[in-house]
Amino acid sequence: MVTFGVIGAGRIGKVHTESICLHIKNAKIKTLADPFMTEETAEWAKALGVEQTVKDYHEILSDPEIDAVMICSSTNTHSPISVEAIQAGKHVFCEKPIDHDLGKIKEVVKALEGSKLKYQVGFNRRFDHNFEAVKNAITAGKIGDPHIIKITSRDPEPPSAEYAAVSGGMFLDMTIHDFDMVRYLAGCDAEEIYVQSAVLVDPAIGEAGDVDTAVITLKMENGAIAVIDNSRKAVYGYDQRAEVFGSRGMVATANDTASSAVLSNADGITGEKPLYFFLERYMESFSREVRLFVEAIEKDTETPLGVMDGLKPVLMGIAAKKSVEEHRPVKLSEIAF
Amino acid sequence: MVTFGVIGAGRIGKVHTESICLHIKNAKIKTLADPFMTEETAEWAKALGVEQTVKDYHEILSDPEIDAVMICSSTNTHSPISVEAIQAGKHVFCEKPIDHDLGKIKEVVKALEGSKLKYQVGFNRRFDHNFEAVKNAITAGKIGDPHIIKITSRDPEPPSAEYAAVSGGMFLDMTIHDFDMVRYLAGCDAEEIYVQSAVLVDPAIGEAGDVDTAVITLKMENGAIAVIDNSRKAVYGYDQRAEVFGSRGMVATANDTASSAVLSNADGITGEKPLYFFLERYMESFSREVRLFVEAIEKDTETPLGVMDGLKPVLMGIAAKKSVEEHRPVKLSEIAF
Amino acid sequence: MVTFGVIGAGRIGKVHTESICLHIKNAKIKTLADPFMTEETAEWAKALGVEQTVKDYHEILSDPEIDAVMICSSTNTHSPISVEAIQAGKHVFCEKPIDHDLGKIKEVVKALEGSKLKYQVGFNRRFDHNFEAVKNAITAGKIGDPHIIKITSRDPEPPSAEYAAVSGGMFLDMTIHDFDMVRYLAGCDAEEIYVQSAVLVDPAIGEAGDVDTAVITLKMENGAIAVIDNSRKAVYGYDQRAEVFGSRGMVATANDTASSAVLSNADGITGEKPLYFFLERYMESFSREVRLFVEAIEKDTETPLGVMDGLKPVLMGIAAKKSVEEHRPVKLSEIAF
Amino acid sequence: MVTFGVIGAGRIGKVHTESICLHIKNAKIKTLADPFMTEETAEWAKALGVEQTVKDYHEILSDPEIDAVMICSSTNTHSPISVEAIQAGKHVFCEKPIDHDLGKIKEVVKALEGSKLKYQVGFNRRFDHNFEAVKNAITAGKIGDPHIIKITSRDPEPPSAEYAAVSGGMFLDMTIHDFDMVRYLAGCDAEEIYVQSAVLVDPAIGEAGDVDTAVITLKMENGAIAVIDNSRKAVYGYDQRAEVFGSRGMVATANDTASSAVLSNADGITGEKPLYFFLERYMESFSREVRLFVEAIEKDTETPLGVMDGLKPVLMGIAAKKSVEEHRPVKLSEIAF
Repeated sequence: MVTFGVIGAGRIGKVHTESICLHIKNAKIKTLADPFMTEETAEWAKALGVEQTVKDYHEILSDPEIDAVMICSSTNTHSPISVEAIQAGKHVFCEKPIDHDLGKIKEVVKALEGSKLKYQVGFNRRFDHNFEAVKNAITAGKIGDPHIIKITSRDPEPPSAEYAAVSGGMFLDMTIHDFDMVRYLAGCDAEEIYVQSAVLVDPAIGEAGDVDTAVITLKMENGAIAVIDNSRKAVYGYDQRAEVFGSRGMVATANDTASSAVLSNADGITGEKPLYFFLERYMESFSREVRLFVEAIEKDTETPLGVMDGLKPVLMGIAAKKSVEEHRPVKLSEIAF
Repeated sequence: MVTFGVIGAGRIGKVHTESICLHIKNAKIKTLADPFMTEETAEWAKALGVEQTVKDYHEILSDPEIDAVMICSSTNTHSPISVEAIQAGKHVFCEKPIDHDLGKIKEVVKALEGSKLKYQVGFNRRFDHNFEAVKNAITAGKIGDPHIIKITSRDPEPPSAEYAAVSGGMFLDMTIHDFDMVRYLAGCDAEEIYVQSAVLVDPAIGEAGDVDTAVITLKMENGAIAVIDNSRKAVYGYDQRAEVFGSRGMVATANDTASSAVLSNADGITGEKPLYFFLERYMESFSREVRLFVEAIEKDTETPLGVMDGLKPVLMGIAAKKSVEEHRPVKLSEIAF
Repeated sequence: MVTFGVIGAGRIGKVHTESICLHIKNAKIKTLADPFMTEETAEWAKALGVEQTVKDYHEILSDPEIDAVMICSSTNTHSPISVEAIQAGKHVFCEKPIDHDLGKIKEVVKALEGSKLKYQVGFNRRFDHNFEAVKNAITAGKIGDPHIIKITSRDPEPPSAEYAAVSGGMFLDMTIHDFDMVRYLAGCDAEEIYVQSAVLVDPAIGEAGDVDTAVITLKMENGAIAVIDNSRKAVYGYDQRAEVFGSRGMVATANDTASSAVLSNADGITGEKPLYFFLERYMESFSREVRLFVEAIEKDTETPLGVMDGLKPVLMGIAAKKSVEEHRPVKLSEIAF
Repeated sequence: MVTFGVIGAGRIGKVHTESICLHIKNAKIKTLADPFMTEETAEWAKALGVEQTVKDYHEILSDPEIDAVMICSSTNTHSPISVEAIQAGKHVFCEKPIDHDLGKIKEVVKALEGSKLKYQVGFNRRFDHNFEAVKNAITAGKIGDPHIIKITSRDPEPPSAEYAAVSGGMFLDMTIHDFDMVRYLAGCDAEEIYVQSAVLVDPAIGEAGDVDTAVITLKMENGAIAVIDNSRKAVYGYDQRAEVFGSRGMVATANDTASSAVLSNADGITGEKPLYFFLERYMESFSREVRLFVEAIEKDTETPLGVMDGLKPVLMGIAAKKSVEEHRPVKLSEIAF
């Protein structure tokens, strides 16, 4: 039985709390910490079986009964809390991204050096049934050598310009998941990135210094070419697809829908839109990733997504930004870590 | 080179004229006959390469240069002209149905006895790419022994009540194609038919003594169970599907559309309706059936759809009517021929 | 908070136990009873939060703290336990079928007369996302008046001949779900049933007096025609589809799959098989039906599936058997209740 | 009636000959010219209704009865014969590309200056039912402003290395069609091109100085971003798809197949592969483009694809090559014309 402390009771913190309490057999939550803990949240947590709720996460770090920390606090605190938690001897599951600052990620890497503690980053999409089926087809050799990897990733609604301004930009906030997916499906790192981007959805995003539409081409270390297309606004909902083309075939996924019902009438043949919200679309993946984290602790094996897997997509995001600024392909090796 | 005379220049007569002139390599039309031959039609025919147009089809029957007669006249003349043509030593391609009257079909059967002449009936759907793919899957053993055969056959628009009154009824006018399809896919005859039918589309059809909606269950000689569902009016267009389920699998077809374009927007994910009109949907099958007829003449082999194949669906239609009247399953053997 | 006692810790009893403990907010289980309760099951139940496990279900019936009884015992005990539970003042959720014997169902109906207790039967498929989407389309008027209702229901594996012999036959064991679905989608009762059936999967099933393949046609009270096709063995898995065709359109569902991944290679374009097992396919529906039962108790409203909804499919199954025996369409009114 | 002379009796010359003779109402072929005219080809042409066959195409140019010339000769002769034909007062339909050399295209542009003659280039895919449906959806405003245009274009088999060496390279030989499609769908020109390419299919292609796999990103003048992915070898057949994503929706096409039959068995749910060969896939487009050319002559209107539409994809191909050589995004304005 792995005992968790969860830090952060926002949207994703609640998702993990519920999933650990309800769906993860060998795990329980002793403490949920949030500086703005409300009474309502505290009651909700207790009903789920959380032992206590606190405001100061240091109560988690200093609690010898807690084995593992789930970091769901605001992005800029991920890396310092990671370091503190490691120093306190806790296993860490850290929501993505570890940080947007490479220096701060480096501190986490250093803190882990020589340690036996487990560290996992929350790129949950790897544990989605569709993307996992694509990966399994590749691993099973069904498409031969990958030649072209295509990721479509479009949000149903753009963020507010305010959020865009502090989010680190689309590449570090949204595309970062796709960068992880490209690495996962290719089975290797990117060598070079080129971005063609634009502000087509909301001029305010452009005024905030960000973009909302992009096509990103990547040269992978194994020779495959990857391409990600992003938009901050797909009116038909959350569009999350992958297609991998190789020497012996292609594997591709479609979006998930609430039902398979199709209506045929005088207007055409109409099926349902994709599941609209990332929590609907990826719900199962949130428990699957934590289940694997718990398993890694119990069996003392590697987590499926270690600190370096958390670092790489950030490097890719920084390279993507540089590609936009300098309007040229950028090698990953140009980004110093 | 097979020289044709075409009798009847209505809709289907024109389809065959065009297809023989343009698409059938070893065939040509010498004469097109129609009692109401218009100047416009005559010009159209000549532009296609038809040598002459006449009013009296006997000019075709008496022409020693003509090898084969294509009968596209009104239904009640199919069998007498068939008999005349056979007696004149012509091969005959007869549009469906040969007749609604079993006695008159019998005369055609007799006329053919001992003859080397080729006779083919125009159940064109057997030569449609989708239905042929289903048949090929069955023949190749891909579904094992057929257990359940399902045909969906729905028209885009009901006939006028006047037409319904003289059409022989839905079973002999519309379902007759499906009866042929069931025999084709099962690879054997039906033993017994039960009909559950209703007037749900247009009360005038009911007043004319016909039905417009039906589910027809058939016990086939090989033990398979077949089911046809018919409607005279599908608002989304011409619905023509088959599904055959067997011991080792299932093969099924979808409708054809004008394009594969799919629109995703705030209303859903919408593809095109089925091709609306039977001439669009089945166009290729009209030349394919005649090509096989020409081949049978040239190679002196059996036509793919002989006079008995023309008879059987009429027997089935008569049994279907009897099932409705007597509200019970009817054995095909009850229908005297 | 509704407190449950669960009677029966077999497969379906465990499904409900887990789902009440994990997924139903306002419900808990005080007692789980099974005459063959194992230590393993008892531990599993306690880990889920079940207060106690017992062998004799009377401990549930006599416990004043228990509001509702979930009957998951063997089929022949459903109706007597229902009666006992009602007499003990408990709300009852009874797994399908209430009984195969109409007289015994009548006793449950009588026990409920004048009572305010809630009774619900476990035809879970109504609460499946796909079938519910079909129903919603109908209710919203999207297809106009239903004309033809088609249910495809095929199991992945036949039961053993031993099971077939005691199961009440395919119509009461398997088709009973489809009978309920037809009533649900049509929004009315069946008037008449005709069955064409066969033994095509396993001769031993025939020797046991049952059939394994059937096409069942139903005339519904609203004039629609329904057709169910059943097979005990679909090699590609659990085939569960519905199609409803009406005056203004058609709504249809496809099977659910584990992922949307499609492989394109030299052999064709291949997607995943349907979910193989009914527990995978319908898992969510098991918690949704119980959630609605709990809601009906809390709000003192009708359950979505009362005792008469449990009775009707049994009547239909008996009519279906009679149709096979007498080889004719059978009116529901012929079956005395 | 437009009288054609066809120059070149190779594969594509035969396609156009057959389609003009059989499918284009207001057109006929007087002369078919080919320096290597065989007796077999001459007979085939006559059977189709071609008046004469010759070896020297100048017989066509000097024939006052011929209105229009269809140029299907080898690529390097397209532009000089175009110039000669224009000077001889003939309308010209020229197979793609006009030339790989911009100077030679310039000569055609000059020859047309001030002339009323019609000139059309054979980018047939614009007249394919699927791509036209995508274009129509865009034109009808169904997707709003285009943001991301995606073209997948993969051949079933790579060319021989010998062919690759003389073909002008993949971008001018294969991608040139996709460049035209991007212009067609965007409704404007490209501003800038970036290519990420590789040799993954056949090292011999690389040794011949060409590539066989590429992802090409284009910035369009209207702000949209386009991306083309190419491979010389898709084992599942000819993969030809488009997806256009915009402010109000997305429209996308799938591949065409020989039938809609889908087989469900223990191995999965398998549909047919895409039509394998470009002549199968695009056959109808070859007659549609010529029909529009004939219409432009008859009505004295613009052809749908004039000489500048023939030029632009060549410019794009040259920019693509430069992008590979210099490993950077290349502006179209850098390519002097």
